[in-house]
Amino acid sequence: VTRQAGVGQDVVRRVNLSHVLRLLHASGPRTRAELTAFTGLNRSTVAALVADLAARQLVTEGEARATGTPGRPSPMVSLRTDRHVVLALDVGVDSLAAATVALGGHRLAHVRLERPRRRTVVDTTIEDLGTLADEVLGELGRGHRLVGIGVSVAGLVRTDDGFVHVAPNLGWRDVALAELLRARLRRRVPIAVANDADAGALAERVHGAGRGVDDLVYISGEVGVGGGVIVDGRPLRGVGGYAGEIGHIPVDVDGLPCVCGAVGCWETRVGEAALLRLAGEPEEGGRDAVDRVLAAAEEGDAVALGALEELGRWMAVGLAAIANVFDPQRIVLGGLHGRVHPYLNGQVAEPPRSELLTVREPVQIVPAVLADSSLAGAAELAFGAILDDPTTVAPQRTGARAARTQEPVT
Amino acid sequence: VTRQAGVGQDVVRRVNLSHVLRLLHASGPRTRAELTAFTGLNRSTVAALVADLAARQLVTEGEARATGTPGRPSPMVSLRTDRHVVLALDVGVDSLAAATVALGGHRLAHVRLERPRRRTVVDTTIEDLGTLADEVLGELGRGHRLVGIGVSVAGLVRTDDGFVHVAPNLGWRDVALAELLRARLRRRVPIAVANDADAGALAERVHGAGRGVDDLVYISGEVGVGGGVIVDGRPLRGVGGYAGEIGHIPVDVDGLPCVCGAVGCWETRVGEAALLRLAGEPEEGGRDAVDRVLAAAEEGDAVALGALEELGRWMAVGLAAIANVFDPQRIVLGGLHGRVHPYLNGQVAEPPRSELLTVREPVQIVPAVLADSSLAGAAELAFGAILDDPTTVAPQRTGARAARTQEPVT
Repeated sequence: VTRQAGVGQDVVRRVNLSHVLRLLHASGPRTRAELTAFTGLNRSTVAALVADLAARQLVTEGEARATGTPGRPSPMVSLRTDRHVVLALDVGVDSLAAATVALGGHRLAHVRLERPRRRTVVDTTIEDLGTLADEVLGELGRGHRLVGIGVSVAGLVRTDDGFVHVAPNLGWRDVALAELLRARLRRRVPIAVANDADAGALAERVHGAGRGVDDLVYISGEVGVGGGVIVDGRPLRGVGGYAGEIGHIPVDVDGLPCVCGAVGCWETRVGEAALLRLAGEPEEGGRDAVDRVLAAAEEGDAVALGALEELGRWMAVGLAAIANVFDPQRIVLGGLHGRVHPYLNGQVAEPPRSELLTVREPVQIVPAVLADSSLAGAAELAFGAILDDPTTVAPQRTGARAARTQEPVT
Repeated sequence: VTRQAGVGQDVVRRVNLSHVLRLLHASGPRTRAELTAFTGLNRSTVAALVADLAARQLVTEGEARATGTPGRPSPMVSLRTDRHVVLALDVGVDSLAAATVALGGHRLAHVRLERPRRRTVVDTTIEDLGTLADEVLGELGRGHRLVGIGVSVAGLVRTDDGFVHVAPNLGWRDVALAELLRARLRRRVPIAVANDADAGALAERVHGAGRGVDDLVYISGEVGVGGGVIVDGRPLRGVGGYAGEIGHIPVDVDGLPCVCGAVGCWETRVGEAALLRLAGEPEEGGRDAVDRVLAAAEEGDAVALGALEELGRWMAVGLAAIANVFDPQRIVLGGLHGRVHPYLNGQVAEPPRSELLTVREPVQIVPAVLADSSLAGAAELAFGAILDDPTTVAPQRTGARAARTQEPVT
């Protein structure tokens, strides 16, 4: 028998504070009247919730203004970007990045370091991330307070403790990433680590191509092919946090060896190396080679177009698997697959291999819209604790506003 | 922006009533002291919740008895099986079944009708289900009250309205199953329809091989191969209710045509027809032929054992896909795959094709334990509304017990 927790008053208050804060975080400033309409709570409850969030310096209330509808003018509620910030870090196969980010996904500072592939010594990576972090943190204002660190990494992550089990395209195995970063950064804030595709899915859902979509699969197609899955509005984790490894669905068991050690994974057919091989480029050609293939396709080059067509055929196979397994409303193609999306339409709009796809509402297949979904997702990870439970931020006692939060909030 | 509902008092009460009722439903009678320990609520709250459930005739409180631990004796709380019942129906490829089931999964009456495959005319099926239903409902006691109907069917179901889009192994397409049954049964209670694997997953999780497991995949292997997925304690539905069609993951795209219209689905390699083909039996041989193959394997027959070994090779491919995509704690093999499980151990315990499976806690692969998971799951479906919200059952006003429920319950 699983131990099941009952629900008390404190949970109600937390859930309602979280609803209001997430609404503002995802959709920008709202009047109190709008918050009342969206939450379905009564006006006095929403006023108390907003006062509570204001006391915690998470939001600010502007002057009341007329809304054009009957009734009293309603004050505008905005997120504060001058107080709580997170540090977002991204460990990619050929780059490292750091950013400081405020509520609402507002980016304060951002640096990026390109680096050669397959030379990702762990110690050097930690040191480089530390340097990037110092740079963006050094630009924070005096009022800013760091409340969390989020890290996105191109590998298989045990989310509970930020341990990277294996990152084939980095050449890593068993790296205690959160622990190493904690020692280097020396900040007394939580560090959350996630797979880059899981992070990308979070960001695209809140700020990008997946806004308002509760059943979403994000495909992070770069050197490796990963997946981030949102089910009924919540990230699919699995028992260890490893769910969503769609690049390693075996679609071609007598096919090519995969970097993961298995044979015929989807990644071997739709990853960057597959496209380059099909187009007659060196598999290790990297971004430059991909750029050449896409430029050639743009000009109508037959070899490049043929390569994209074959890639599309295999894309359709994996997309059919994803559709049949998750029944998502939308699949968001990130990275490489976002770039090749215009050439895939023929295959992925009418997948030839699965009748199951055609008996129901067709799944929407769209490119990602954020320039760097995984870095943005690292910030979402870091803000997760506050967004889920704003009471983790202590209220500041400053006059009348603080007094109001003494009232019970339901 | 998604409209998000705030949480009020009524929700707290419903959630707590649901916790207590589900606990009793899954694990049998408990003392009030045990319920207090399991829910983490205080004693007076639990007493009020139990009184509320008793007034709704969902539970009964026995005499207080000493528990062997310090403190007052605590009354035993049991589910009532003499009041609320559901009708469970199962539409299989070669049989129909009906049962009346009380809370706790207690089966009151049960009938089953074998029938030839591929002769499943819709009208005849509805009429046969009606006859079976009349039979088991006719045996109910005078105190019994039918509160719901659950239907499990070997097809792709739109759960919102119980519409069967396609059921390849029944030869059905676009069957308004819930509507047809409503017209035939003429009972004013909700009818919930689900895919047989989704139903099986529910039942195995509550009463079978998946007890207490929050991340679970149930494989319903019969003529077709379906999947029921539990993610973080909740059924994976997808946007239309079609999620979990793991039998139609394309693992062999240059392989055999599938009954679904696609090519190389996992089902073509691990379904009943695949086993019979490998064993040199006619593919349409049915249960008798499967029995012959398993009996021969039992006696050490080389052809039968070779067939099972090859089946196991393909089982490992699909299980790797499932593990990589869902990261479940446990995979429960139902039907055919539960029967062949003893022969699969070599392949599925050490899957040769996916290193990803080996870098983390190995997934547990176990056979189902319920004799008919999908019928049991149909009952779970039908009880779902009451288990989620016991207040949908009106309290009976009978003396002192009813009076107690006037108190607010938090």
